[in-house]
Amino acid sequence: MAADDRPTLGIGMVGYAFMGRVHSQAWRSVSAFFDLPYRPVMAAVGGRSEEATAAAARDLGWAAAETDWRELIARDDVQVVDICTPGDSHAEIAIAALEAGKHVICEKPLANTVAEAEAMTEAAERAASRGVYAMVAFNYRRVPAIALARQWIAEGRLGRLHHVRAQYLQDWIADPDFPLVWRLQRDKAGSGALGDIGAHIIDTAQFITGQHLTGVSALTETFVTRRPLAEASAGLSGGSRTAETGTVDVDDAALFTARFSGGAVGVFEATRFATGRKNALRIEVNGSAGSLAFDFEAMNELWFHDHTLPAAEAGFRRVIVTEPDHPYAAAWWPPGHGLGYEHTFTHEVKDFVEAIAAGAAPSPSFADGLRVQRVLAAVEASAADSSRFTTVEES
Amino acid sequence: MAADDRPTLGIGMVGYAFMGRVHSQAWRSVSAFFDLPYRPVMAAVGGRSEEATAAAARDLGWAAAETDWRELIARDDVQVVDICTPGDSHAEIAIAALEAGKHVICEKPLANTVAEAEAMTEAAERAASRGVYAMVAFNYRRVPAIALARQWIAEGRLGRLHHVRAQYLQDWIADPDFPLVWRLQRDKAGSGALGDIGAHIIDTAQFITGQHLTGVSALTETFVTRRPLAEASAGLSGGSRTAETGTVDVDDAALFTARFSGGAVGVFEATRFATGRKNALRIEVNGSAGSLAFDFEAMNELWFHDHTLPAAEAGFRRVIVTEPDHPYAAAWWPPGHGLGYEHTFTHEVKDFVEAIAAGAAPSPSFADGLRVQRVLAAVEASAADSSRFTTVEES
Amino acid sequence: MAADDRPTLGIGMVGYAFMGRVHSQAWRSVSAFFDLPYRPVMAAVGGRSEEATAAAARDLGWAAAETDWRELIARDDVQVVDICTPGDSHAEIAIAALEAGKHVICEKPLANTVAEAEAMTEAAERAASRGVYAMVAFNYRRVPAIALARQWIAEGRLGRLHHVRAQYLQDWIADPDFPLVWRLQRDKAGSGALGDIGAHIIDTAQFITGQHLTGVSALTETFVTRRPLAEASAGLSGGSRTAETGTVDVDDAALFTARFSGGAVGVFEATRFATGRKNALRIEVNGSAGSLAFDFEAMNELWFHDHTLPAAEAGFRRVIVTEPDHPYAAAWWPPGHGLGYEHTFTHEVKDFVEAIAAGAAPSPSFADGLRVQRVLAAVEASAADSSRFTTVEES
Amino acid sequence: MAADDRPTLGIGMVGYAFMGRVHSQAWRSVSAFFDLPYRPVMAAVGGRSEEATAAAARDLGWAAAETDWRELIARDDVQVVDICTPGDSHAEIAIAALEAGKHVICEKPLANTVAEAEAMTEAAERAASRGVYAMVAFNYRRVPAIALARQWIAEGRLGRLHHVRAQYLQDWIADPDFPLVWRLQRDKAGSGALGDIGAHIIDTAQFITGQHLTGVSALTETFVTRRPLAEASAGLSGGSRTAETGTVDVDDAALFTARFSGGAVGVFEATRFATGRKNALRIEVNGSAGSLAFDFEAMNELWFHDHTLPAAEAGFRRVIVTEPDHPYAAAWWPPGHGLGYEHTFTHEVKDFVEAIAAGAAPSPSFADGLRVQRVLAAVEASAADSSRFTTVEES
Repeated sequence: MAADDRPTLGIGMVGYAFMGRVHSQAWRSVSAFFDLPYRPVMAAVGGRSEEATAAAARDLGWAAAETDWRELIARDDVQVVDICTPGDSHAEIAIAALEAGKHVICEKPLANTVAEAEAMTEAAERAASRGVYAMVAFNYRRVPAIALARQWIAEGRLGRLHHVRAQYLQDWIADPDFPLVWRLQRDKAGSGALGDIGAHIIDTAQFITGQHLTGVSALTETFVTRRPLAEASAGLSGGSRTAETGTVDVDDAALFTARFSGGAVGVFEATRFATGRKNALRIEVNGSAGSLAFDFEAMNELWFHDHTLPAAEAGFRRVIVTEPDHPYAAAWWPPGHGLGYEHTFTHEVKDFVEAIAAGAAPSPSFADGLRVQRVLAAVEASAADSSRFTTVEES
Repeated sequence: MAADDRPTLGIGMVGYAFMGRVHSQAWRSVSAFFDLPYRPVMAAVGGRSEEATAAAARDLGWAAAETDWRELIARDDVQVVDICTPGDSHAEIAIAALEAGKHVICEKPLANTVAEAEAMTEAAERAASRGVYAMVAFNYRRVPAIALARQWIAEGRLGRLHHVRAQYLQDWIADPDFPLVWRLQRDKAGSGALGDIGAHIIDTAQFITGQHLTGVSALTETFVTRRPLAEASAGLSGGSRTAETGTVDVDDAALFTARFSGGAVGVFEATRFATGRKNALRIEVNGSAGSLAFDFEAMNELWFHDHTLPAAEAGFRRVIVTEPDHPYAAAWWPPGHGLGYEHTFTHEVKDFVEAIAAGAAPSPSFADGLRVQRVLAAVEASAADSSRFTTVEES
Repeated sequence: MAADDRPTLGIGMVGYAFMGRVHSQAWRSVSAFFDLPYRPVMAAVGGRSEEATAAAARDLGWAAAETDWRELIARDDVQVVDICTPGDSHAEIAIAALEAGKHVICEKPLANTVAEAEAMTEAAERAASRGVYAMVAFNYRRVPAIALARQWIAEGRLGRLHHVRAQYLQDWIADPDFPLVWRLQRDKAGSGALGDIGAHIIDTAQFITGQHLTGVSALTETFVTRRPLAEASAGLSGGSRTAETGTVDVDDAALFTARFSGGAVGVFEATRFATGRKNALRIEVNGSAGSLAFDFEAMNELWFHDHTLPAAEAGFRRVIVTEPDHPYAAAWWPPGHGLGYEHTFTHEVKDFVEAIAAGAAPSPSFADGLRVQRVLAAVEASAADSSRFTTVEES
Repeated sequence: MAADDRPTLGIGMVGYAFMGRVHSQAWRSVSAFFDLPYRPVMAAVGGRSEEATAAAARDLGWAAAETDWRELIARDDVQVVDICTPGDSHAEIAIAALEAGKHVICEKPLANTVAEAEAMTEAAERAASRGVYAMVAFNYRRVPAIALARQWIAEGRLGRLHHVRAQYLQDWIADPDFPLVWRLQRDKAGSGALGDIGAHIIDTAQFITGQHLTGVSALTETFVTRRPLAEASAGLSGGSRTAETGTVDVDDAALFTARFSGGAVGVFEATRFATGRKNALRIEVNGSAGSLAFDFEAMNELWFHDHTLPAAEAGFRRVIVTEPDHPYAAAWWPPGHGLGYEHTFTHEVKDFVEAIAAGAAPSPSFADGLRVQRVLAAVEASAADSSRFTTVEES
């Protein structure tokens, strides 16, 4: 564990809703489990409402509250800006922070448009040359089972990869009376299921295969096109709803087939209408030497089929990813005493702090976020063009 | 159980490989479990080799052997022709049999081309007007769990259907040294994974949803383009291989998104490269009021999520489909004493014989087989046209 | 497959209820899948009611019907007597058949008392010296997954065995209004859950471990002590019930801990009150080098944990027991095309016929059945003596 | 969330190994998720080594370190003493703390002997009369799925309870070279698997059924009787071992059958030799109206069979226990974003603080801990007396 005399690293977080709460828990807990080169200090949280931001600071453990994110960035006791706002404000905040010499960790999707993501990536690259680093918060990379999957694929255990099948299934808007929250509005969220959860399976697929998507053929659908308007601040639970209705201008579901740079083919599906599936981020990869399968609803398990075994002995094996030799696991509890959702964020900030200390670019970079953004754009372009196969733009 | 004085129904089967073996077991067993209006008699089996056909007759329990399928059709003791040959001979045999006034049950896919399937469907319709019936053998409709799924969806238990995700995953040609058996040759098999196993999930999806596919956007891939030539008579196991190689001219995998006539969207995947998946015919349907999920590798189970329950009580429920009230199940064993693959065929011939006796068209009809054939054609057309969304031709 | 000129083996079956139906299917099917040295002929079925026995003969495919089992035994065309009656008649029929020089296959439990089982075992041993063989029908030994478990343990893959946990869970008498069928009467059935299903897990545990139980400490319970009287011929489904009630004088549930000859300890539980569990014959064995787990409700799967692998790679592996190298599997369908309950009987009669032809004692022998009977007796003795640890009597 | 002006509650924790680490995380996090009437302050941690205790204070977030637990108790800024030491010191510390007017939360098992547990319970009852409260830390009661199970059983959803089957399976000492850590020494740990993990399933079974065990019949076993001596401070991982060996004088496994106060019967098994099972705390309860099943290795799931449904619709239902209406769940993340092991402790301290504030006895009380201790004693007595059924002593 870390000594008392290690330097501090002041964190300033913008946004304190769902993502802000879980990032706060990560910053609060990380030092007790990982021996970090810096001691993170929860310096300030930023929000628009003075009262609500002050309450958030108190409840989530931030030393100060700011109602202007520019002032938060400017604080001397802030060296890291953690962006937990909706996608429409990511670019402005992130670029300002990087230009001010502050390291940035930014929630996904990186931005609402490719153009914004490009500007952010350029800013990140300029900053990196000055030793200021940026990371996009694809937290699922830090699920131990997913990190293990990447490791095993990189070691060649699956041989030549043939298939990826990835799904992100939720059901929280299946009720047509669920209100028109910001995640259902294009100007706030950029897209619907596609950007919110499709982005995660795109990143996860690229991460664990070590291949990128080269093209897609997509179909999107909006099942419920008008919904009650929500109260202004409604979160994921929808809050109370009004009698008026508004138009849903994002996708309820996005389905696409894809080709990967290494020759694999893939099927992707993101929806919030899969009744009974709560947070089923699933991915299976089939290679010539074996297969891997994962479902976040059982996040401590990775299923591995070793196809090099005699057929009579082979089968999908349930590896409980809590052994000391598994990624991140030695920091926690004995085998079988599983982790939960929040720990992916603890791992994320741990890796981020270590990268900063090492003077190395953290991963996933803004360029990785841009790559996902370009896939999202290709999906939307294909869906708008009769599902025609659409090449993902390269840098 | 049936009385002795019920009329006989003479069966003549063409082909005695994998499908012929399982059809034989169905004919041999069906009367002991179901009280049929006719007593099926295993009159004759047909094949090309005199010796091998005689051996098949003896081992599989057929009273006679014929080396010319035309003579088998012509036999007075044959009222039903059961076609278990590769797809390239289906049309010729089926049309001849129907024209000779013999009922026909024909393995799937109905034919290797839409044109053949159309000719067969026309022949079936002409025959039906004379009380001679035809059925295409999509056996998976007779898995009790799949029949139950259809019943529950028809009753409205899933509400409005939003999603279908269907996979048929096998792995028996993942080894690049597996030889070029007839199922990998376009002139024999019509297509690869698409027609062999993709046809099953297309039919199953249409069957259980009661909707048909209106259009598809597809991507196909052949991972291994040259393989060793097989010995002439190699079956599924591949047999011994030769030093020469030949070209694989069918798909190894077919992936497609789809739209359904009732508004649902679907994702389909058929492959024989999913290492570790042996016969994973899987389908999940999500509706506004609930969801159903099935995997043939656990064929006695149907998973049902009732979304009308309070959220705190809901979840996918593992229904073991062996209760007396379940489709076909009362004929067999007590609850929990499961059925296997072969019983889908026993159910199939039972339904077929009952339809003939009732003077009703059996289901699935050749028209249903044609409908699947048109989806297959649309998939191939889309795949050849940059995955562009392609409308499935209507009758 | 077998040639026409192989000798026939005439079968005479006594009893045609649940067990008789499934034995009939086994005799009817076995020759089509296994190349047997004899050709089994379904010569005659025996029962008490002339009409019902004739109907059973017709429906199940037996050439003749007999209303006196002594006449059935005496028939010249009967070389094998297959006993499918309740346990109270096993001893008399089996001993008579063996003395008449007929091979015997007898349903389990071997008898209702140890004394009967001893007499049967002695008769079997006398007969064996004359080349006449006897087998007790513990069909679950012929589940491919269970046969594979035995093989792997015999090969040493689990190392030193520490734990056996076995359960046989059903729920068909959980309803207190379910009637007093013969299986709930001590004079017919010998005991309740203990002999009916507990016998199966005792035999299975001894079979797969290669060890026998040396002593037990038991607790039995009858939850519902009075039940409506059933109609005379009620089977498993209970049939219609009368207004009168009678006393349940057998156990509803039997629970016991045990020690094995090789040092393992075990926990056993047999009940027909486990609501939601239909036919959950489960067994898990933990050894120093690995573990195996099985549940009949997913009978085509065997779960194997290889503890010699590095911990980070290990986990329970779902082996689908349908590969050509798996016990019995090569005779059937391609991998993943599962088997059902009935096939355990097909395998049973196949092994029985082969043993007869080889002049070798079939397994499990009547001595094996006696061994199980002695465990049942020890369980009852312990339960009657404050659960005191009770040694299983040795031969 | 809580206001700033709520009173503080100073916590002093004794012991900082595995349990101390997870208790620390609970105290550190609880206020951010639950609106507590007091604000817990991590005042001081106690240990024997000055250096190690100071390091623990720094790493785990305690404001001060004490090397004498008496001084820790005496601190003015400590109102709660949290006991995370081995069982041999529980009684002394807990009684001293309660007498000093400090609330106590004490790890399980409550003590190493019934006599100690009785003394502790008396001290707790005396203290309660002065408004000073004590709780035993059976954390698994705070798994949301287990809390939900209790709630549903209390509501009568399972009807009359017939069966409990509980297992706690681990495998961390299956290797005979694993060293003789304190948990394998009777003077430190009281017993082996029995007290360490058996205690959890006893408490869990009593908690969710609302019934207590009235008697047991037990069998215990020590598979490995000599082990290498461990380094002094070895924890769960065993640390380095020495060349000398010592005697294992506790059980490696404890198996017992039981009767419950409400008429159910149970089977219990606790072992650390179940290779492949890492932390499988499992419990299934079967009642006349339904069943529940749980496995900690999938801790966010509760399986529920509703036996009042028509048989054709019924089956075990996988309820993901993350809905807002589920116990504790509203404080955390959206549905499907699961919790981990540590959150059971967060819930525990939340309930403890709320009870203190309400002036109500927290649950489980020391009397509950004593009840478990008496079951442990009955298990050992039965095992020592030929497994004879042994009544659990009542208060």
